[in-house]
Amino acid sequence: MATDVQTPKIKLANGVEMPQVGLGMWKMDNDTCADVVYRAIKDGYRLFDGACDYGNEKEGGEGVTRAIKDGLVKREELFIISKLWNSFHDPEQVEPIVRKQLADWGVGYFDLYYIHFPVSLKYVDPSVRYPPGWFFDDAGTKVEHGKASLQSTWQAMEALIPAGLAKNIGVSNYTGALLLDLFTYAKIKPAVVQVEHHPYLLQQSLLDLCKSHGIAVTGYSSFGPQSFRDCDMELAQSIELLFDHPVITKIANRHRKTAAQVLLRWSTQRGIAVIPKSNTQDRLLENLDVTSFDLSEEEIKQISGLDRGFRFNNPLNYGIPVYNFA
Amino acid sequence: MATDVQTPKIKLANGVEMPQVGLGMWKMDNDTCADVVYRAIKDGYRLFDGACDYGNEKEGGEGVTRAIKDGLVKREELFIISKLWNSFHDPEQVEPIVRKQLADWGVGYFDLYYIHFPVSLKYVDPSVRYPPGWFFDDAGTKVEHGKASLQSTWQAMEALIPAGLAKNIGVSNYTGALLLDLFTYAKIKPAVVQVEHHPYLLQQSLLDLCKSHGIAVTGYSSFGPQSFRDCDMELAQSIELLFDHPVITKIANRHRKTAAQVLLRWSTQRGIAVIPKSNTQDRLLENLDVTSFDLSEEEIKQISGLDRGFRFNNPLNYGIPVYNFA
Repeated sequence: MATDVQTPKIKLANGVEMPQVGLGMWKMDNDTCADVVYRAIKDGYRLFDGACDYGNEKEGGEGVTRAIKDGLVKREELFIISKLWNSFHDPEQVEPIVRKQLADWGVGYFDLYYIHFPVSLKYVDPSVRYPPGWFFDDAGTKVEHGKASLQSTWQAMEALIPAGLAKNIGVSNYTGALLLDLFTYAKIKPAVVQVEHHPYLLQQSLLDLCKSHGIAVTGYSSFGPQSFRDCDMELAQSIELLFDHPVITKIANRHRKTAAQVLLRWSTQRGIAVIPKSNTQDRLLENLDVTSFDLSEEEIKQISGLDRGFRFNNPLNYGIPVYNFA
Repeated sequence: MATDVQTPKIKLANGVEMPQVGLGMWKMDNDTCADVVYRAIKDGYRLFDGACDYGNEKEGGEGVTRAIKDGLVKREELFIISKLWNSFHDPEQVEPIVRKQLADWGVGYFDLYYIHFPVSLKYVDPSVRYPPGWFFDDAGTKVEHGKASLQSTWQAMEALIPAGLAKNIGVSNYTGALLLDLFTYAKIKPAVVQVEHHPYLLQQSLLDLCKSHGIAVTGYSSFGPQSFRDCDMELAQSIELLFDHPVITKIANRHRKTAAQVLLRWSTQRGIAVIPKSNTQDRLLENLDVTSFDLSEEEIKQISGLDRGFRFNNPLNYGIPVYNFA
């Protein structure tokens, strides 16, 4: 049963409207991905946040194709997102890999295509290994960096728009410093910046910077350490889960909502788009229903007070020697 | 009286040796700057860390010129550093402003010349305002960014070496992400990276990155919040001074050294060059004498345990709306 909740939209710089809640596909099982995407479309999801690196774009595409075929939705009602992996930063590799990713999805264009990380890795032919991931050199001690500057990669990203392969382009895991540099050379500014965002990592100055440039922000890992516990990450193990944090549970009880819904509502009331993942239908519906209640300003302030500047998704935290954030 | 302490040296990538302890000139009073520099040379200082933005390069140069004239030291025994201010990032402005700064110092070359911040601001003619500082637009609400990419500025920096205007070039206030991008386009890597570094801001991943690329690191604000208290900075007001921190004072008492000396020794034992400032001769001597004792590994570990990721020198912290760090 589809909810009758209307997902709010965020208007991007070019006037396109992006759903504020979507389904994130990181760590979505290949076995069930197609069904979950199909089910999600049935339940009202319109935005799907995929990536080469998640290794499930074909399966995501199967779900989409079936839903379109069954008449649940039209392509133009969907907002399909993908990301350029680090090993395809060389300008001449951008369009070919986008074409491959589009073929995997079975669609003709992406609604939004991001640079996944501000890190150029050595090219790996997709026929050799796909997705290539964070691969190490032959000695197994360090990653092999590529030679593409972020400027050269961004120029190749910009070319996707006139080529009709992407309606919007953006960057993920960028810092304010990188954005300032990008603004000096970008002919097309990012439509959306996607970054880790939760009460333990407020990113306030980055959000302010994006706002001042008319750039929308999507937050990932809205639940904080939760997603990183199974990455064997010390920081994520040692810190209190936001689901159990008394500030969150107290507010959740007050509104008769789950902790997850409170965390998503806190993000969306901060003007941020969210892309929680779920493999179960109950959770899918629960996550989509984030605008049927409002947190008070005082509640938002209390949650924001949990900021500790903890960034879980730093590759260093899971053993990848790429020192890309601070 | 000159100390007989031998200042240790750090060998840079091109084989040049840089003194590990020098005199930082930020906030050095114009009235006394020439005398302090002269006195410091007499006391054994060889490295002077200046910048356009400090507004005292002429006075620094007076001290140097007098010391050379009096036979205290030869130019080639000194290591004179300066920095490119944000409003001179346009490639065509780099060489002219370096020539002006060299004229201010009264020397023919800099031993090291940094990009001061990874932020391009609109050009200001030196005859209109010098140093230009962090200036706001006419409405007084925001800084006016320039159009120079960091790549274009770095290329102009590289040209200073064959032109004989700088022996080494480096970057200051860069993050790991910015360095990774710089490595993709740099023909000459930075010889030195200068960043804020103290027990409240360990910068471990940045240090590891620099080490893996053979880049020396100079730490500024070695005493932490101390220098920022008079900048009316909330963070610096609210946190315990490192000089008063029991971990530091206990170790200082044990070694019969000052807290300042312990903090500098902690930095230098971490392999980092330091540039403390002082207007008094006692302190100058005290700061230079940082290698007459060693901290134990356990003591170093205790001090490193104070890390809180607190960055004081973020322009946002003193009211400049430039979101350049995270």
